Amino acid sequence: MTRALRLAERGAYTTKPNPMVGCVITRDDVIIGEGYHVRAGEPHAEVLAIASAGENVRGATGYVTLEPCAHFGRTPPCADALIAAGLARVVIASLDPFPQVNGQGAQRLRDAGIQVDVGLLEAEARELNRGFYSRLSRGRPWVTLKLASSMDGHTALASGESKWISSDASRRDVHHYRARVGAIVTGAGTVLQDDPQLTARLQGNVDVVQPLRVVLDPGLATVGRGKIREGDAPTLYVHAPNAKVPRDLKAELVSAPVNGNHFNLLSVLHMLAARQVNEVLVETGATLAGAFLNAKLVDELVLYQSPVLLGSGARPLFDNVNITTMAERITLHRTDVRVLGEDLRITYRPQESIA
Amino acid sequence: MTRALRLAERGAYTTKPNPMVGCVITRDDVIIGEGYHVRAGEPHAEVLAIASAGENVRGATGYVTLEPCAHFGRTPPCADALIAAGLARVVIASLDPFPQVNGQGAQRLRDAGIQVDVGLLEAEARELNRGFYSRLSRGRPWVTLKLASSMDGHTALASGESKWISSDASRRDVHHYRARVGAIVTGAGTVLQDDPQLTARLQGNVDVVQPLRVVLDPGLATVGRGKIREGDAPTLYVHAPNAKVPRDLKAELVSAPVNGNHFNLLSVLHMLAARQVNEVLVETGATLAGAFLNAKLVDELVLYQSPVLLGSGARPLFDNVNITTMAERITLHRTDVRVLGEDLRITYRPQESIA
Ligand SMILES: [Zn+2]
Ligand SMILES: [Zn+2]
Repeated sequence: MTRALRLAERGAYTTKPNPMVGCVITRDDVIIGEGYHVRAGEPHAEVLAIASAGENVRGATGYVTLEPCAHFGRTPPCADALIAAGLARVVIASLDPFPQVNGQGAQRLRDAGIQVDVGLLEAEARELNRGFYSRLSRGRPWVTLKLASSMDGHTALASGESKWISSDASRRDVHHYRARVGAIVTGAGTVLQDDPQLTARLQGNVDVVQPLRVVLDPGLATVGRGKIREGDAPTLYVHAPNAKVPRDLKAELVSAPVNGNHFNLLSVLHMLAARQVNEVLVETGATLAGAFLNAKLVDELVLYQSPVLLGSGARPLFDNVNITTMAERITLHRTDVRVLGEDLRITYRPQESIA
Repeated sequence: MTRALRLAERGAYTTKPNPMVGCVITRDDVIIGEGYHVRAGEPHAEVLAIASAGENVRGATGYVTLEPCAHFGRTPPCADALIAAGLARVVIASLDPFPQVNGQGAQRLRDAGIQVDVGLLEAEARELNRGFYSRLSRGRPWVTLKLASSMDGHTALASGESKWISSDASRRDVHHYRARVGAIVTGAGTVLQDDPQLTARLQGNVDVVQPLRVVLDPGLATVGRGKIREGDAPTLYVHAPNAKVPRDLKAELVSAPVNGNHFNLLSVLHMLAARQVNEVLVETGATLAGAFLNAKLVDELVLYQSPVLLGSGARPLFDNVNITTMAERITLHRTDVRVLGEDLRITYRPQESIA
């Protein structure tokens, strides 16, 4: 199953909005076939693994990271393929959260006389597809907040100058997060101040399904401006209901509810889930970062911390996060720390997070 | 020599103000004797190593981390002891920075017909006694600035509340830094706000020569107050020349030059060097931390970073460190990162540092 999970991960940049799935087929504890889902519309992991096993597959054991599908989607159901191939046993890491599948795939296999075991490395399998599970169980994408700061917790000087805080290794690393997610969310201020392109640009010939770029721009102040319109990725502008929409605008627009000048971020995330976005990366300034935090909509924080000191008066990581007593402090769980050139990358999850 | 350095380190908490020194004696690449300096006034490493080698020492090779002394101090010169023991060769990691010794110990050995080699693991040996070298070459102690912050760079809430930021492991770790230094420097504000005792309290029966506690208190507002007077360690109050000194005061006082309400920190460090303090640990609030930084008197920063988020408006790591352009930013070199329970301990040195 560990091998099946590693195979599944290979689809991290291309399966969206589908989950990553890996499948390994063994006979007498020797691997005789394997496969993973590469891209929506293309064959599922189980079908590829069966094909690669050839004649040997009859009576073998299959390990699959997600419950085999039992419904007709863009491809025929994998449960039927496993039955037709004559497998004796199927081990499933985690059941499918999708209402049309949950438990039905396993049941169909059992009905055909196959021994089915569920739950091997389940936590790892759910972690792998945390976005897919989040969308189907919570109705919103998994949210990762990317932060970059000096060792004294500043993102930029008072002037807004923020260039060269991060090392080359950190900047390259960010692109792997971008490649993984279905959408990158940013604010109008970041577009105007930093002018990022927000596409996933990986070294080598790595295939990536580009994420949707989402600009939260209440008054549509940035449409027609910045690198955010460049590169081979779609851009969506989210505006306030009362925004004046320019005529003949080519950009895609959607309106979302606001409270004053602040978006209802949960509504924005629901809208993205409806567009089948499993994971969101928030790359933004202190105001929007603070707003996501205040709304308790951050599932993971990724902090790129540079060995630089920006001193007093520089900009903070979060605006408007008001904590007046220690009891109110936000306690995080550090899940990883990694050296990236000069920088450290530290990953946290809020302790109350589901994951 | 690596073994000799490890031996020398065992004296880290007790040799002050003397340097740590280790000595290993080998014959045919087998260790036949070893020793390290434990405490000022007690035998030097070389003498202990010779004694532990016994009869075998004649014609052997000695490895010593610091140049053997050639002058009569509290003990007779070690160079003479090595000559009398009949060693054939002596390998020295680093020459003594002390003017009365530098090169003379090595020369005396050579004059007696001993083969002398200097420079093996010299950088490690100098690093081990960085405080001793700093005091003798720069006339001031080595300064380590201890910081504790949340992941968003805050030391306390706006109210000053700062309890429970650090993990138990971090708090225990700080005591090892305290045990090593000759003096701990703090400010009147920290004494009033946090009321620390600032002694080195290690687990188990570890022998420690307690550091001098130094309170920078221009107006002597804190004398007679706080835990800083408790425990088995001396306390020194540094005050402004114009401070009103209370009558019948039992505490030890010294005056230092001020500019407005700010001490000349270099003068304070010179005064501590004159008292044979090799290393200083600064444990203080944002104001004094910023002042040490602005005066370019920080050789090392030790940051205990907790997975906690204190939000906007909480207190910064440094006050009055004004950086307005990226070119002025203070670039650090990260020398270590370590997991201490929930916390990270990250160690930095300013890039322009001597070490
Ligand atoms: Zn399928
Ligand atoms: Zn000596």
